[in-house]
Amino acid sequence: MAKDKQVTQITSMEQDFAQWYTDVCTKAELVDYSGVKGLFILRPYGYAIWENIMGVLDAKFKATGHENVSMPLLIPESLLQKEKDHVEGFAPECAWVTMGGSEELPERLCIRPTSETLFCDHWSHVLHSWRDLPMKYNQWCSVLRWEKTTRPFLRGREFLWQEGHTIHATEEEAREETLQMLEIYADCCENYLAMPVIRGNKTEKEKFAGAVNTYTIECMMHDHKALQSGTSHYFGDGFTRAFGITFQDRNNQVCYPHQTSWGLSTRTIGGLIMTHGDDRGLVLPPRIAPTQVIVLPIAAHKPGVTEAAEELVERLKAAGIRVKGDFSDNSPGWKYAEYEMKGVPLRLEIGPRDLENHQAVAVRRDNQEKVFIPLDALEKTVPALLETVQQALFDKAKANLDSHTWAASTVEEVREKAQDGFVKTMWCGDTACEEKMKELAGVSSRCIPFAQEELGDVCPCCGRPARQMVIWGVAY
Amino acid sequence: MAKDKQVTQITSMEQDFAQWYTDVCTKAELVDYSGVKGLFILRPYGYAIWENIMGVLDAKFKATGHENVSMPLLIPESLLQKEKDHVEGFAPECAWVTMGGSEELPERLCIRPTSETLFCDHWSHVLHSWRDLPMKYNQWCSVLRWEKTTRPFLRGREFLWQEGHTIHATEEEAREETLQMLEIYADCCENYLAMPVIRGNKTEKEKFAGAVNTYTIECMMHDHKALQSGTSHYFGDGFTRAFGITFQDRNNQVCYPHQTSWGLSTRTIGGLIMTHGDDRGLVLPPRIAPTQVIVLPIAAHKPGVTEAAEELVERLKAAGIRVKGDFSDNSPGWKYAEYEMKGVPLRLEIGPRDLENHQAVAVRRDNQEKVFIPLDALEKTVPALLETVQQALFDKAKANLDSHTWAASTVEEVREKAQDGFVKTMWCGDTACEEKMKELAGVSSRCIPFAQEELGDVCPCCGRPARQMVIWGVAY
Repeated sequence: MAKDKQVTQITSMEQDFAQWYTDVCTKAELVDYSGVKGLFILRPYGYAIWENIMGVLDAKFKATGHENVSMPLLIPESLLQKEKDHVEGFAPECAWVTMGGSEELPERLCIRPTSETLFCDHWSHVLHSWRDLPMKYNQWCSVLRWEKTTRPFLRGREFLWQEGHTIHATEEEAREETLQMLEIYADCCENYLAMPVIRGNKTEKEKFAGAVNTYTIECMMHDHKALQSGTSHYFGDGFTRAFGITFQDRNNQVCYPHQTSWGLSTRTIGGLIMTHGDDRGLVLPPRIAPTQVIVLPIAAHKPGVTEAAEELVERLKAAGIRVKGDFSDNSPGWKYAEYEMKGVPLRLEIGPRDLENHQAVAVRRDNQEKVFIPLDALEKTVPALLETVQQALFDKAKANLDSHTWAASTVEEVREKAQDGFVKTMWCGDTACEEKMKELAGVSSRCIPFAQEELGDVCPCCGRPARQMVIWGVAY
Repeated sequence: MAKDKQVTQITSMEQDFAQWYTDVCTKAELVDYSGVKGLFILRPYGYAIWENIMGVLDAKFKATGHENVSMPLLIPESLLQKEKDHVEGFAPECAWVTMGGSEELPERLCIRPTSETLFCDHWSHVLHSWRDLPMKYNQWCSVLRWEKTTRPFLRGREFLWQEGHTIHATEEEAREETLQMLEIYADCCENYLAMPVIRGNKTEKEKFAGAVNTYTIECMMHDHKALQSGTSHYFGDGFTRAFGITFQDRNNQVCYPHQTSWGLSTRTIGGLIMTHGDDRGLVLPPRIAPTQVIVLPIAAHKPGVTEAAEELVERLKAAGIRVKGDFSDNSPGWKYAEYEMKGVPLRLEIGPRDLENHQAVAVRRDNQEKVFIPLDALEKTVPALLETVQQALFDKAKANLDSHTWAASTVEEVREKAQDGFVKTMWCGDTACEEKMKELAGVSSRCIPFAQEELGDVCPCCGRPARQMVIWGVAY
């Protein structure tokens, strides 16, 4: 009755990275395709990763005074049109509801691509006095953007995310909020997803439709391409003026409040896959893994083995570890391949010989290293080993980022290096030069990093004086 | 600067129960209306109640082996049509997406009114062997049903819910699941929302579109009308045959699996309001209240008062109570009205006299009773008092249910009593008699309760032999 199927074959990363990615998404049972292009099913294992990311972020949001709300799914076309830049950015990719039951609607409704307009409409009802400010809201939901090309996690017509929306009495407070939330995203990426980030400002060309400033965290994938992993926007009072949102300040003056929004989506799961994965499949950082340890009995028919494995599971569970045991009659080879494909950080084996030696054998997913664990040190050793794996994954990703970030001073150099990572150059700040770089070197500006460097004096595109350093890359 | 607005006036329950309900929804800041009829905004306080309900249920779902997933928002029309009864039930109230960006879609897509068809489509891809069974899935999401009349929580075109969907190798196992989930709903309603329920079977006429059996929990509101508060459906193999979902059993026979679904929505928040509320506003059971205790300093300018109130907050927080302090300069009268409107179960006051007496004064929201609490017994007394309030709310609601449930043996009696509660009668089991009862007595069948009684031998509608007892009522 045992499953004895061959170790699941997936395309190797070197052979075809895009196919490898898709193989991991399906073979690790993260997603399934639905009947509508670009709308993906998150299967239990994929959704469990998202639940862990939600848990990390939601706690941080609440600790910084944010409250969750639920806004409607549908936006009347007239509401979407209230802020000019915003509607230009989003209208071309909206899905439109035109029928309710058997009746044609008097005004078509778009499924939210993002909810700034809904929050503004609500605030225009409920904001009166400086006493009501700030309002710091967040919602967990899905949004729709009718993209042409789609890939699981990376680009869906529907994707899950959180969108935070806040409104403040002063510009200063709103700008602080924008940066605080970017820092929370960076913390989540670096310390939970083990993905090192570059923090920076988006250029005028790349910023969010309607924003004054867009801040971003950019990550480097295994193939040295960039993934924008979270953004935080400062809107000034552009939307609040467009929506007529005012409040009375302490001196009874009528003022326009200042606004922010910030979002992080299931894209980060795509980032996890492409940052840490290998030819055996997914590799998950322990802090975010749905299952941190899989316990396998070896020669389970031998006396005492199953009981010992069960005890390992119970002891680790009691120690707060997310642990499972696999007591099925599948072959060891099948089990190894299964949990490697799913990226479980540690495999813990126990067999008759181990019983004699009062030990278990841990095998790290990230580097296949074997570690013998004395049974009486289980609760101390396993959490420490998980932290070691967490740090090793971050260090490896950081080494990849550092060793594939290049400085360049000519467009030609950017074009050459961009095939192999991020490229830093000086820049005059002119959008024309940014567009020229895209055309000639095939890269987009990823950000103007907060950590600026002095690489030279002139813009490589136009030769005029440089104002700042930009990071360029090929992006997902 | 202090807010000194009048105690917010709401319509009294006796005067106009429907208006009272709407007043509470808005004045307690649970909801706001959006620009689309029937799509409501859940404000922080309303959503926090839902978060607590989600917390209770999600833990129970996981403890019984269910996993969360995320299914797409949109269903192709052809997929919705695969199960005949199901499409007949839902198609008339679907919202249809016909445009993606600027292009007309080749097939229109409905926004999910419920997701049976999506789960079935997925299972048809991933189910192969008896080893894959059962699959016990749940999702937290919103659904759309294009209703004509809408009210906050009770009937929205969009509402938040969870929908569980499971698939099993045997009928027996699926039937057990259906009843287990009904019991989890009953537990949540009775032991957290303090809403006593009647468990039963829906009649053929009232069951879910496509189900073999629909089980329900029915609650009685303050005005003696019924609220269906959660349903659990057994589908047999109707959908799995329609969708061609099969698996190989242990003997390598190809079989159709058996299926269930079950849902509970933000309707239950409407139920909470109408079960426990009074003319001062919302009354929340402590186990589900976002804020269980509000601490108010009295004569806060007097030495030591503010510090003592702050200490109360800190001590209660440390004791695991959801507590807030209001240290604003609003008047005591304003604060009393505010937290009564919001239904906070306990108000804890401390002033100069209390400091002298080493006590605080607790005021129960449910009956305005004052309780003096010695400061050194705070951590023991407050949780006990909250439990007392929880039980008192349940007892009061149970007394309402019991004293307004009537037995009847004629249609005329049903018509009379139905204005004042639930009516139990015997029934022949014929849908024609059920329809006659609706027409002549203005009631729908709420359920065939699990707890059957022998009220007589004949059906009050047709005089033929009775088969079972039914509960009738006027429902929301």
